[in-house]
Amino acid sequence: MSHNSFGHLFRVTTFGESHGPAIGCVVDGCPPRIPLTEADIQHDLDRRRPGQSRYTTQRQEPDQVRILSGVFTDEKTGVQMTTGTPIGLTIENVDQRSKDYGEIRNKYRPGHADYTYDVKYGIRDYRGGGRSSARETAMRVAAGAVARKVVPGLLVRGALVQMGPHRIDRSRWDWDETGRNPFFCPDAEAAAFFADYLDGIRKKGSSIGAVIEILAEGVPPGLGAPIYGKLDADLAAALMSINAVKGVEIGAGFGAAALTGEENADEMRLGNDGKPLFLSNHAGGVVGGISTGQAVVARFAVKPTSSILQPRLSVDRFGAETDVVTKGRHDPCVGIRAVPVGEAMVACVIADHFLRHRGQVGETTPWPMGG
Amino acid sequence: MSHNSFGHLFRVTTFGESHGPAIGCVVDGCPPRIPLTEADIQHDLDRRRPGQSRYTTQRQEPDQVRILSGVFTDEKTGVQMTTGTPIGLTIENVDQRSKDYGEIRNKYRPGHADYTYDVKYGIRDYRGGGRSSARETAMRVAAGAVARKVVPGLLVRGALVQMGPHRIDRSRWDWDETGRNPFFCPDAEAAAFFADYLDGIRKKGSSIGAVIEILAEGVPPGLGAPIYGKLDADLAAALMSINAVKGVEIGAGFGAAALTGEENADEMRLGNDGKPLFLSNHAGGVVGGISTGQAVVARFAVKPTSSILQPRLSVDRFGAETDVVTKGRHDPCVGIRAVPVGEAMVACVIADHFLRHRGQVGETTPWPMGG
Amino acid sequence: MSHNSFGHLFRVTTFGESHGPAIGCVVDGCPPRIPLTEADIQHDLDRRRPGQSRYTTQRQEPDQVRILSGVFTDEKTGVQMTTGTPIGLTIENVDQRSKDYGEIRNKYRPGHADYTYDVKYGIRDYRGGGRSSARETAMRVAAGAVARKVVPGLLVRGALVQMGPHRIDRSRWDWDETGRNPFFCPDAEAAAFFADYLDGIRKKGSSIGAVIEILAEGVPPGLGAPIYGKLDADLAAALMSINAVKGVEIGAGFGAAALTGEENADEMRLGNDGKPLFLSNHAGGVVGGISTGQAVVARFAVKPTSSILQPRLSVDRFGAETDVVTKGRHDPCVGIRAVPVGEAMVACVIADHFLRHRGQVGETTPWPMGG
Amino acid sequence: MSHNSFGHLFRVTTFGESHGPAIGCVVDGCPPRIPLTEADIQHDLDRRRPGQSRYTTQRQEPDQVRILSGVFTDEKTGVQMTTGTPIGLTIENVDQRSKDYGEIRNKYRPGHADYTYDVKYGIRDYRGGGRSSARETAMRVAAGAVARKVVPGLLVRGALVQMGPHRIDRSRWDWDETGRNPFFCPDAEAAAFFADYLDGIRKKGSSIGAVIEILAEGVPPGLGAPIYGKLDADLAAALMSINAVKGVEIGAGFGAAALTGEENADEMRLGNDGKPLFLSNHAGGVVGGISTGQAVVARFAVKPTSSILQPRLSVDRFGAETDVVTKGRHDPCVGIRAVPVGEAMVACVIADHFLRHRGQVGETTPWPMGG
Repeated sequence: MSHNSFGHLFRVTTFGESHGPAIGCVVDGCPPRIPLTEADIQHDLDRRRPGQSRYTTQRQEPDQVRILSGVFTDEKTGVQMTTGTPIGLTIENVDQRSKDYGEIRNKYRPGHADYTYDVKYGIRDYRGGGRSSARETAMRVAAGAVARKVVPGLLVRGALVQMGPHRIDRSRWDWDETGRNPFFCPDAEAAAFFADYLDGIRKKGSSIGAVIEILAEGVPPGLGAPIYGKLDADLAAALMSINAVKGVEIGAGFGAAALTGEENADEMRLGNDGKPLFLSNHAGGVVGGISTGQAVVARFAVKPTSSILQPRLSVDRFGAETDVVTKGRHDPCVGIRAVPVGEAMVACVIADHFLRHRGQVGETTPWPMGG
Repeated sequence: MSHNSFGHLFRVTTFGESHGPAIGCVVDGCPPRIPLTEADIQHDLDRRRPGQSRYTTQRQEPDQVRILSGVFTDEKTGVQMTTGTPIGLTIENVDQRSKDYGEIRNKYRPGHADYTYDVKYGIRDYRGGGRSSARETAMRVAAGAVARKVVPGLLVRGALVQMGPHRIDRSRWDWDETGRNPFFCPDAEAAAFFADYLDGIRKKGSSIGAVIEILAEGVPPGLGAPIYGKLDADLAAALMSINAVKGVEIGAGFGAAALTGEENADEMRLGNDGKPLFLSNHAGGVVGGISTGQAVVARFAVKPTSSILQPRLSVDRFGAETDVVTKGRHDPCVGIRAVPVGEAMVACVIADHFLRHRGQVGETTPWPMGG
Repeated sequence: MSHNSFGHLFRVTTFGESHGPAIGCVVDGCPPRIPLTEADIQHDLDRRRPGQSRYTTQRQEPDQVRILSGVFTDEKTGVQMTTGTPIGLTIENVDQRSKDYGEIRNKYRPGHADYTYDVKYGIRDYRGGGRSSARETAMRVAAGAVARKVVPGLLVRGALVQMGPHRIDRSRWDWDETGRNPFFCPDAEAAAFFADYLDGIRKKGSSIGAVIEILAEGVPPGLGAPIYGKLDADLAAALMSINAVKGVEIGAGFGAAALTGEENADEMRLGNDGKPLFLSNHAGGVVGGISTGQAVVARFAVKPTSSILQPRLSVDRFGAETDVVTKGRHDPCVGIRAVPVGEAMVACVIADHFLRHRGQVGETTPWPMGG
Repeated sequence: MSHNSFGHLFRVTTFGESHGPAIGCVVDGCPPRIPLTEADIQHDLDRRRPGQSRYTTQRQEPDQVRILSGVFTDEKTGVQMTTGTPIGLTIENVDQRSKDYGEIRNKYRPGHADYTYDVKYGIRDYRGGGRSSARETAMRVAAGAVARKVVPGLLVRGALVQMGPHRIDRSRWDWDETGRNPFFCPDAEAAAFFADYLDGIRKKGSSIGAVIEILAEGVPPGLGAPIYGKLDADLAAALMSINAVKGVEIGAGFGAAALTGEENADEMRLGNDGKPLFLSNHAGGVVGGISTGQAVVARFAVKPTSSILQPRLSVDRFGAETDVVTKGRHDPCVGIRAVPVGEAMVACVIADHFLRHRGQVGETTPWPMGG
């Protein structure tokens, strides 16, 4: 991963600040002849869009994506398809509310990247967090919408599995439920609880963390580029790069530390199709940095939004001590909108490795191997 | 991170299989005029070397490193220094015990990368795990020994903080203790407990997981290349790429999910030196993907060694179901030797970002910024 | 260089087709606190802009650049400066003349990239050449305008030194003259000749090649990253990547093949400032892939425009033989507008190496070295 | 291209100085299941090896390559094949003649990289040129031997086509002849002339430049990654990165500047196989940065060896003016041994693009495209 790009063959570059004219991205290396329209991308963007419930920031952004390049409509079929050239995307910023930035212009908000951007660059666009704003994640979602189409049969879905100290009951997991509540929560009972819980947090002007789980099904076996381009290593980087993420785990994750070798081993049998079948998935679909063909399972922890109404001790850029209060529109649980973002990052990583694997090894995977 | 290289300006490439003639690495982009000898590297390698206690594999490898290039001895001072050209390193494999590979030649050991390497490449060097062996991590440690010298004042130390379900008591943390017990454990009482505990695991032919913590002090503020080359994202990839690692967290990590914004915020005051001083470090030294100047704190979970004496269900490369038992020399808790490996990876990532930051922004960080 | 990006620390990514909605680029890794406005970039774009004389395509494009991100106006000084975050730029396409593409939709124009794009991707945007159009070079010029500001004291200028078989007289070289004629020609007499010569070519519906020379002054010594990131190697790639370029040379270039060692050696003395002074510059400012501190001199050959009025033998995408005539607006000597493009590419490469060198080695170059 | 690595999917990293213990390289990303032995590589190395005629340096190096990793011998077939893991190669330096370096330790030899390495790094291994020695090219040849096996049907051959001002007669071109004379010259009469000519140069203690041509046949159409990873751009960088190279051209090259569009266009017909057939190859097999399926033709100019017996004006690292004479063993025409090096670089670039293309687009190229 370089500065503002990630991926090798399927490579995404983003730009844009929260309150600048627009944000954008370039998806480079996409295979040609994949049907792709603005509506395809908009569908995913709408899932991440703010202002859709009282649990997310009230900033009103239509997040209308525009495809500037990389697609062409075949005159014969009338189908718009990728051409293999870079796909340029932009979203104009609309609701950059004009306001008084006096409070944050020279003060560093604890937990925000105010101080670190300033100490790194000696200058920062403080309006709405500038480049460090979660607004940037819209372009990750846009890129992910393209990535989803690269790997045939790939299905990447995400869910909020913990808010604050409260975990969902996995026995009630229902993917359909994630579309019915504003939390992307697969457990209807937990979702009802979270509604009340988060109202309480919000009304206090506080915020809370969360844990998100991403499941990628239909990942072909053999993806990953060990030793340093392991599939799980690239997933870890991709997810950790999302705003406010503080931890990433694959499969059993940190829980694996407490297991014995017998417990952790995913035993193998042959499935009805004559292919290897795993009897469990502690590995989370990745062994030795290479996909096993099982579902890839990743979880990540999102810290509480740093913007809270209680004053915190801080310093300013003149080198004086001060207090700071963060007013304005914010998500009381920024983890919620991280669900489609996490999905997008996982889709991008898998698409990239799908192409990388095909490059090195070719299209066919022999099975059985023979002796 | 590409296939077998990582880092951008400080770039490490490794090669070698467990039972091949040698393993090696190339450290490219190292600044010139840094004193560097084989003894410097050997010191770190000796900490990772197997066969030093009954708790690690009994394979006997002197792990004697040889510097093939990239250094030059100044005739006047007699000091051997880096020249800025690539540093080539090799370690000959000595104890590739000649044995019968019948059991694993065609069978896939659950938890090992046998199946995934085979399904990816259609061929694998099954002797001792080939490329997927932990033996490869010796070269990470060697590269890390160079990296430690790149950032003035950098101190990277690691410790085992959990074995199986048992966590250390952090109030007893003593860095000196990590050098006195075979577990790199900073809590003497926990170390004594782990000795018995792991003996039990070992005698049963079982294995157990662990959690490792790495602390990097002396990291200058401003390191990291957001949005996709964030310091924590690169740390996550680097640590997740270590064999058997299933989770990575920074600072409060997964615990941050349960915190409120008030609890999680690291408030700021001015220190005696007039520079910002943080009153806590939930961030683990990284905010917005950029170092704050506090200690960088990373933890990672290591799964239990997959090599265990109990037979497990599996399949073979002919497409038949079978059982497999893993004999041979193994670490009952591979997490132990992951401590110096984790240190090395953190050192490499920080060295790389130190150079990348200097490249983009230059050498000086103004403070205070002014208005 | 990857697909649509180049550079390591100063990294440029472009997108856009000739007749799509817009073209754009992202300049990533630019140092912060560099004054930068749209006018700065527009100045360079206007030099490349088509339709300014009868010797270039009559397509009318205002080429109005828009900065979407990466800059911020300091409230105190009112100066707009880079922030270190990615600089997003777009130019809307205005004059995509609606026309009948029947002639080229299914036919491959010899010399154009019609066949190769089709055989690579299985689809192509044939309108105006799509991605392979010289229109893309506008974004190179925009990126170059930023690059010029990165290296203090850098001056990059270019000139047309040969058109068809006719070389300029170097003894009449006058940089000011390059701004007075439509050929960027530094020799006023040659320019007058070229005006007639090219009128003849144009009226015949033919086209002609050219040689361009780029001179970069103020390049600090020490830039370049041998062995494979040599300054001249990166310059060669950058210039060869420009549309229609078929050859690149540095300093004496192909002429060096005919020289003896004595003739070719650039002898050294000490200048008045006590620093090394070269008595000649056959090296073109680069030795061993590293800048010497002399002017960097690069030349590149541009083939004649492939769009000509005479019918040529060809085939179509149905696999049938055919003839093809290229109508429409074209440059009779595409080499002319390659001058600002070449300047831009050289500036980008030097800016990138300036940052890379500072990353690895730091800011100061000691002289004399001592013993 | 980064510091000491090149290629994206087929990636080569080299290390080693002229008079250090060994030189080496890592070939990463090679496809698995390709038969590969040390003898395969040695065959190419022997063509580049010094000391084989009086026209090359008398340094005696057996250049015995050792494969340290990345291959495995199938027990059943007994065939050693690549495994897809990194291929580590080393060659021990044997004939680092112990000598007095007094003359060059502190003096900068004009034309050599002495000054530039020193001004860049502040330190240099002056023994035999250190990293800037042509000795490094042995590892390029080794990597190229692997690359040749990656693309089915690829044949890459090179020839010396000009020495000093003397060009060969292309009508006498005979590939077999390149193996019969010590100049890799395809024109027997020219070779006889060069023998006398170069004896004269050598006896005077002088040196001379040369032009080399590389022809790659069997390159599939569609290779190349425009806009910045064009096949010809990557070839230009790869060839320009070879020691002493000052110019690179593709197809008609600089000659294209003097052609009209009609002359330069490579017209197309259908071949007997129903595929496009070009009636000429001014393009040198690359249009729009993508291979056409024709032979790829590249030429590069090599400057005269800088080591000559006549004293030249210079300065030393103390900042004093001086004279310098280069004694020792040298090639009077370093261009000769650049032939196998150029072949290797072209093979590596094509192998890389073969894999990159397969990654993005897959294995099949449809023809005809249809409507």
